[in-house]
Parts: sequence; structure tokens; C-alpha cells
Amino acid sequence: VNDSPEITESTPTRNWKLVLAYDGTDFRGWQVQPHQPTVQGEFANAIERITGEHILPQGSGRTDAGVHALGQVASFAIEAPIPEANLHRALNRTLPGSIRILSAEIVPPEFHARHSAVRKTYEYRIYRAEICPPTLARYVYALNWPLDLEAISEAASHVIGEHDFTSFAATDPDATTRDRPEAEPDYIRAIYESTWRKEGDLLLYRVTGSGFLHHMVRNLVGTFLEAGRGAISAASIPAILAARSRSAAGPTAPAHGLFLAHVEYPPGTSGTPRHRMLP
Amino acid sequence: VNDSPEITESTPTRNWKLVLAYDGTDFRGWQVQPHQPTVQGEFANAIERITGEHILPQGSGRTDAGVHALGQVASFAIEAPIPEANLHRALNRTLPGSIRILSAEIVPPEFHARHSAVRKTYEYRIYRAEICPPTLARYVYALNWPLDLEAISEAASHVIGEHDFTSFAATDPDATTRDRPEAEPDYIRAIYESTWRKEGDLLLYRVTGSGFLHHMVRNLVGTFLEAGRGAISAASIPAILAARSRSAAGPTAPAHGLFLAHVEYPPGTSGTPRHRMLP
Repeated sequence: VNDSPEITESTPTRNWKLVLAYDGTDFRGWQVQPHQPTVQGEFANAIERITGEHILPQGSGRTDAGVHALGQVASFAIEAPIPEANLHRALNRTLPGSIRILSAEIVPPEFHARHSAVRKTYEYRIYRAEICPPTLARYVYALNWPLDLEAISEAASHVIGEHDFTSFAATDPDATTRDRPEAEPDYIRAIYESTWRKEGDLLLYRVTGSGFLHHMVRNLVGTFLEAGRGAISAASIPAILAARSRSAAGPTAPAHGLFLAHVEYPPGTSGTPRHRMLP
Repeated sequence: VNDSPEITESTPTRNWKLVLAYDGTDFRGWQVQPHQPTVQGEFANAIERITGEHILPQGSGRTDAGVHALGQVASFAIEAPIPEANLHRALNRTLPGSIRILSAEIVPPEFHARHSAVRKTYEYRIYRAEICPPTLARYVYALNWPLDLEAISEAASHVIGEHDFTSFAATDPDATTRDRPEAEPDYIRAIYESTWRKEGDLLLYRVTGSGFLHHMVRNLVGTFLEAGRGAISAASIPAILAARSRSAAGPTAPAHGLFLAHVEYPPGTSGTPRHRMLP
């Protein structure tokens, strides 16, 4: 009787981890919103068109309107028995060219794109020559003022380590801590790398941390640029952190220069993406 | 009486030559159209906002909706006594980032961006790797099929020289010869360079000629790609030219891979642009 055909088994769901890149210009950010183009919404629609399953992929974190991604990570569970090698191709045929799936793999059920993340890296791109090529305009902050590279580098170095980043968090209380890993207290984040480098006509800021508060990278960049143009001293960053007040720091740099570069998970959580966007 | 203050002289107009780059994605092409975003329309508005003068800048030729430019040339006469070094900066402050003025110079009154042009160069960009980065998607034709590079190169070489390009012209009779230099008979154009080259994940077609019929570069590319995928023989290009029929050639390649790279004028017509977009 154990093999009676009347016993119906529920279809097992499989948990997927996807790495994706997007041009955020024409989206109202990652998070799905009614009647607005969002990356999560386009992504959910594509999955539904392919599998018939209506699910909401979970991102490693939200990105704001206009912010781009080179390696956002999303996870979701679906029943469709799609071979592991085929899902990213099927999705890329369905999604607009402004969103590309770089890899898709089946991961253990406990993997969650946001809860499992241990480090994130963002890159901010500034264009320094007089005339910004139109083909780059959507992907850089064109800033032609004199900037003291040594000062912005020194300013950036002061945020490395574990700090309370209240001064660099958006004042919107609801949104501020939404990226918070489960284990971390509000406003305290660890920064592992915080460096500026020149690459041709580009000036690139790269920051890796345990997690980031809402607007934190853009507020850091806006403040470092104040140091770069001499409006504040690079040495004042520790005092700005200590002030724990948004008004102590500089302005928010524009969204369109910011890229979520990649998200790291504990070793063994999943394999290496087959494709990577060049930075 | 010759120096009587009552004699009013009309303000002399000065003739300007401007070189400009644009991202054509969000425009309905170069040519001004009512209630549609066009490059010529944005450009005319910016000139009017700066000088108060309502003029229509003349382009070296129209570009279609979605086609980009690295070095389009425009000319116009205005009265405003703007110093030669200042006009491109004033325009770049006024124009959207998708249009950039690379240089502006005062030229002799007889200079005309279209009538004076002697050679034009277009570039067509194809992306060959599996996943096209979202930041490139607007500027390349992503084409991942196998292509025989030798065949497309041979096909391209067959159009060098003076030929009747009826087979590669849009069938729209009104638009077909609109780019025609004054001295040239309909449908006959001289091609000086027609080459394909690989550059990383890009496959680039570069063509220089005396002038181009409507859709001619996109129809050449569409036909060369047919040779590249083996649908036609590269050696059939002379017969396609001889057929003088649009139906003899291949399909029209998409607009978004096409760039107007630069326009040449007789030596001495004007100086060298101060800025150039990298190809």
C-alpha cells in the first residue's frame, strides 16, 4: 500500500540564489511598488511568466531609485523543476536588457539573500574630465571641480572599523535600518575597506562593510567630497561620526553614481557565479 | 557724414560650427518634430535660452530615432557676440547630459554642416559575449550567435569604391536621398573604408564614405551579418549591389548599435575640435 498511486506528494520547492546586474536609471528602485517600474517587480513578473509561480524574490537589500547593481543577489523558492543551467537564460530572454541575470544556482533551503549576507561592497563613480560622454552620463556623477585626492582618501580611511553611523544615515526613521543584518545593533556597522582610486577620467570610491544604513554610501561620498574641495578637514570625520547627527555630515551624493558591486556569504553557502560584470 | 551716428548698422551674424555627441535612445532622432523629443529641438531650445535667438541648427545629416553620435556636426548663424571659448560651456550647462557639445568655433559664412561635408564615418557596435552588461545595452546590438569573422570582413570589403547603393537604401522614397551631398547623383556613393574589427567582447564595423542613403549603414550591417551566419555567401555582395533592389539585400540592423562617429570637411574649413569622444 506504500506505493499506492492515490498518495499524492506535494511538489518539493527548491531554493534559488541568483546574481543580477541592472541599470537603475529607469526603475523606482529595487523594491516592488504598485504601478511603478521596479527591479523586484520586473524580476517577479519574469519568474511568473516562465514558471507560472507568483513569488517575490528577496534581495540582499533594497537599492534606491537610480542606483545600479553589478552583483545584486536575490533568493526565492519555486516548485518548477527547471534544470540549474537553464533558469538564467530563460530569465534573460524574458527580462528587459536593463536587468541581466549573471548566474542562477540551487542552494540549501536556509539560504536567504538578505539574512545570510555577511559583507557588501558598493562602488561610487565620479567623472572628472570637462565633458562627460553621453554614454556614461547615466552611470557616473560628473564633477569637474578641483578635488584634493589626498584629502578624500584620508577622509575615507577614518570610517574603517566599527562605528556608529547615525551621522551618515538617512533621517527617514522607517527606512534607516532596513538593511540591518539580524545580528547587528542599529546604526553600528563594520567597514572593512574604504578607498578612492583614479582610473583614467574616473574617480572611484569602493567601500566594503558588514551592512549599510539607508543612504549611507551616498552620505559618506557627499561628505568625503566636502573634504576633497576643502570645505571641511579630512581629520574632522571622527568628530562627525561622534556627533551622531545627520546634520554634522555632508550632503547626499546623487544616486546615479552608485553601484552595488557584490554581496558576500559565508564560505560554502553557494558556488561562484558563472558570469561577472566587469566593474 | 559717413560717420554720422544716425546710420544704424544691422548686427552682424556669425556662423558657428559645433561638434556634438549624443545618446540617441530617448530622442525621436535628430530632426525636430512637434511635441517629440529630438536632438535638433533640444539644441535649438538651448541656443534660444542662451541667446534669445530662435534659429534651427543644421546638422551634417539626420540620424534616426535611437542612433547615437560621437561627432555629429551642426552649423548656424547667430547675432549674439558670445566669445568663441564660451559657447560650448554655456550650452553644456543648459542641455541634458544625453547631449554634449564637444567644441564650438566661428567659421566663414559659407560653411554649412551638410553642404560642406565631404566624408562621414559611422561605427556599428555588436556585443558578442553571452550576457550584455545593462550599462552597455543601450549602445550595442547584443548578438550571441556564431559568426564567421572572415566572411563578414570579406562581405564588407566588396562595398569599397563607387557603387549604386539602391539595394541598401530605405524604400521610403522621400527619405532615401535626404543625406545626398549636392554634387552626387542619387543612390551612387563612394565608400573609402569598410572594415570589421574585434575589440574585447565588441565586434565593430567602421565605414567611411562620401555620404550615406537612408538606413544604408544599418542595411549594410544587416546584410554582412547574413554572410557572417552563413545565410548568404560573402561573394554575393557584388550581385546584391547590381540587383539595385532593396529585396536583394538583408534586414535592417537595429538603430541602437549605430554611432555617427565623425564628419570631415575640406582642409582649412575649420579647426580641430578641442574635445573628442573616445570611440
